[in-house]
Amino acid sequence: MSANSKSASAGKNVILSSVRDTLRGAGQVMFQESAWTGLLFLAGIFWGSYECHLPQVAWGAVVGLIVSTLSGYLVDDRDGSGPQGLWGFNGILVGCAFPTFMANTWQMWLALVICAAATTWVRRGLNNVMGRWGVTSYTFPFVLLTWIFLLASRQFSALGPVTLSAPELTEAVPGAIDTSFVSLVIYWLKGIAQVFLVDSWVTGIFFLVALAVCSVRAAIWAGIGSAVALGTAFLFQGNTADIAAGLYGFSPVLTAIAVGATFYKSNYRSALWALVATVVTVFLQAGMNAFMAPLGIPTLTGPFCIATWLFMLEAYKFSGKKQHAQASVKK
Amino acid sequence: MSANSKSASAGKNVILSSVRDTLRGAGQVMFQESAWTGLLFLAGIFWGSYECHLPQVAWGAVVGLIVSTLSGYLVDDRDGSGPQGLWGFNGILVGCAFPTFMANTWQMWLALVICAAATTWVRRGLNNVMGRWGVTSYTFPFVLLTWIFLLASRQFSALGPVTLSAPELTEAVPGAIDTSFVSLVIYWLKGIAQVFLVDSWVTGIFFLVALAVCSVRAAIWAGIGSAVALGTAFLFQGNTADIAAGLYGFSPVLTAIAVGATFYKSNYRSALWALVATVVTVFLQAGMNAFMAPLGIPTLTGPFCIATWLFMLEAYKFSGKKQHAQASVKK
Amino acid sequence: MSANSKSASAGKNVILSSVRDTLRGAGQVMFQESAWTGLLFLAGIFWGSYECHLPQVAWGAVVGLIVSTLSGYLVDDRDGSGPQGLWGFNGILVGCAFPTFMANTWQMWLALVICAAATTWVRRGLNNVMGRWGVTSYTFPFVLLTWIFLLASRQFSALGPVTLSAPELTEAVPGAIDTSFVSLVIYWLKGIAQVFLVDSWVTGIFFLVALAVCSVRAAIWAGIGSAVALGTAFLFQGNTADIAAGLYGFSPVLTAIAVGATFYKSNYRSALWALVATVVTVFLQAGMNAFMAPLGIPTLTGPFCIATWLFMLEAYKFSGKKQHAQASVKK
Repeated sequence: MSANSKSASAGKNVILSSVRDTLRGAGQVMFQESAWTGLLFLAGIFWGSYECHLPQVAWGAVVGLIVSTLSGYLVDDRDGSGPQGLWGFNGILVGCAFPTFMANTWQMWLALVICAAATTWVRRGLNNVMGRWGVTSYTFPFVLLTWIFLLASRQFSALGPVTLSAPELTEAVPGAIDTSFVSLVIYWLKGIAQVFLVDSWVTGIFFLVALAVCSVRAAIWAGIGSAVALGTAFLFQGNTADIAAGLYGFSPVLTAIAVGATFYKSNYRSALWALVATVVTVFLQAGMNAFMAPLGIPTLTGPFCIATWLFMLEAYKFSGKKQHAQASVKK
Repeated sequence: MSANSKSASAGKNVILSSVRDTLRGAGQVMFQESAWTGLLFLAGIFWGSYECHLPQVAWGAVVGLIVSTLSGYLVDDRDGSGPQGLWGFNGILVGCAFPTFMANTWQMWLALVICAAATTWVRRGLNNVMGRWGVTSYTFPFVLLTWIFLLASRQFSALGPVTLSAPELTEAVPGAIDTSFVSLVIYWLKGIAQVFLVDSWVTGIFFLVALAVCSVRAAIWAGIGSAVALGTAFLFQGNTADIAAGLYGFSPVLTAIAVGATFYKSNYRSALWALVATVVTVFLQAGMNAFMAPLGIPTLTGPFCIATWLFMLEAYKFSGKKQHAQASVKK
Repeated sequence: MSANSKSASAGKNVILSSVRDTLRGAGQVMFQESAWTGLLFLAGIFWGSYECHLPQVAWGAVVGLIVSTLSGYLVDDRDGSGPQGLWGFNGILVGCAFPTFMANTWQMWLALVICAAATTWVRRGLNNVMGRWGVTSYTFPFVLLTWIFLLASRQFSALGPVTLSAPELTEAVPGAIDTSFVSLVIYWLKGIAQVFLVDSWVTGIFFLVALAVCSVRAAIWAGIGSAVALGTAFLFQGNTADIAAGLYGFSPVLTAIAVGATFYKSNYRSALWALVATVVTVFLQAGMNAFMAPLGIPTLTGPFCIATWLFMLEAYKFSGKKQHAQASVKK
């Protein structure tokens, strides 16, 4: 083999591994260190955002994913976060959220780039703090920074929050809701799709398949999480518009995957623990909705982060803990 | 002695010690590791809640206390928290708060059970974090989780927040207030009774006696705390309806017992320190009232937790620290 | 030399060093351990507050500075914080803020004294916590305690918040703004003056000179910080009234001095890092304005604290860290 073809092959390998690390960033949103899962997530986002006539959301996801991965290469070359896809999962969520809630201006895209890049070092900073107690920041860098920029959009006209709900002291009264079996399945699938802020049941199927490609257990727990959220929301008579759009589901889905399929070994004790955590996440979702109402911003995946901290901090020991890239900080 | 009677006696002992540990949980709300204090607290709660025609508050206290103690036996058998009554004090407060602020539906009772059980592991989790700095979570597991469920009740019709005040941007203008000596004594006693959310001066007497049974010093500081709160609220012309209901008093009472009679040795320096902490708690109470107004939820004992952290974190060293079950986390 | 004149000379020295330590407290607001900088800061505050017909702000600054320094002598004699001016910088800001936002009553002055004194031990407490991650509390003791007292002033009529803006759900619509060169310079200088809550461009000149006396680099970064804030606010079309009053500038000015001229060695990498941190601070300023709107209280220097934590926690390592009194906690 000539030196030339060797270097060409090495170059090709670098490109391939960069693409793989980037796509794993998409997969890590639901804790899967798999480029194929990430690719299918992206496919689901493209399907859903074009279906909803919001193509900018899909392209935002791509931009956010790439920018935050690049930011990781620049400021965070000190451990194995990159190959595990830990740079991109906050950035892709920033990329989904910005065009969903703000106007499609060039300033919005500039803000998206700044915010997606910042998730990398904010993640490291928060993990430096939280790592001492066996938890990490999960998607909180995305949540915190996006809250800041969405709030800022109320003062910065150029970010024009066209689709942010108006601040209000009390929520609208819930109305009637279709409870046919088909409707319930649609709400259930949307609960999974809303993890990436997509309001499409087809996207929910994409995501379940994407999870199953890497971990059937994760796919099952995603399904359980959305179902438990749906049941709890009906039992306590939640806001029907939110139920129908899957908005009670996305945080419990993440909690269920995290506690049920990621951080603990599989047994009946950890399963019970995951179920309780999932139910508490639904109350956190409703409570944070009410907390955010006067501010007019969404909770994002904040309820998942808080619920998972409350349950992981306790370091429940009856079932063994598993190793996972997002489980703890490297020393 | 036959083996039979031995085992019967052992069984009797287990029951007795369980009852004792449970009642100590009530006592620990005001830092007293005494079943008798706990029993008198419960008596005061029953008296006050029946006087106010809210019997469900008293029964909620019993349910919350038992559920959180059971939850402790299930998930927290690794240290001596149980015999010290550290499982129940958050649960009993959850049990007082839920029927006070939410509708008397079966869903409310289900939520009460979930929330009371969760206080046990949330307490452990928060103490894992805070223990590094010589403070613990005090009643904050109750405060945090109850805030979440009360906020959720705005979205969940089945929890129907009938007695939660409406969210508002500005508080009502204070009116005239009776300042006769008898009235002042009533406000002062209610400030103590409101630690368990009871609006009855008779209950305040119950609580003072309950404290004195275990620690005269604690009873005296409870009285000082409520008096200082009353004086400060008058001096700075606080909301008169809140003054009359003892609502400026309950957090300062807890701060006064914690800093004045629990965590430091008794001397004039620690007494001065406790007085300053108590005054600051009154400002925290007023400030948090204003913070919570747009959300329409009460501060609960949050002002006490925050004030005590601010004063205990400093680890004031001029007077020695005392050992107390709630002072630090066992390693 | 006789014993008498020796003791007189020693007494004179104690007075001089006390005055020096006190004035350094003013200087440390912008990280300068210099009594001359502190004196010029005070001169700027006096000029501006008399120009704005609010002399009580200047005298409040003096009272707050002295009270918090005395409080340091009383409760915090365990390390070298005093001679470095670390007791006074929170207290002087409390002294500027209280008469700016509250009524000029004797109760306000009493509250000012309590709050300024409390900054000393709250600072120690927060530093005990934060010191573990290489950051300190910066001006957050002032921010946290002043938020509490300003919120409390909504309940305590005697503190009558005459100049606090009314709580509101949405901010006023921005209007036209003069963008002549002279006006831009005035906005830019006011951005620096507002660090001490003074709305006067002359005061901005005082502050730049005061910084240059101790560190030309700090003065340059203060200028860069205010300019970057102005540019960002224009680019994203911020609230024009806030732009004109320099209200987007004061937090970015502090971030720029902290990250650009205080905590890192000077090189192009740390300069880039400081610029990004400064831009993010502008979004934090706008976002926190929106967050605070329903509460009707100002952000104070909260955006600076949060931005600097987010950037310092990451412990950016490409350029070396410098030693500074506010950089870390002594063990």
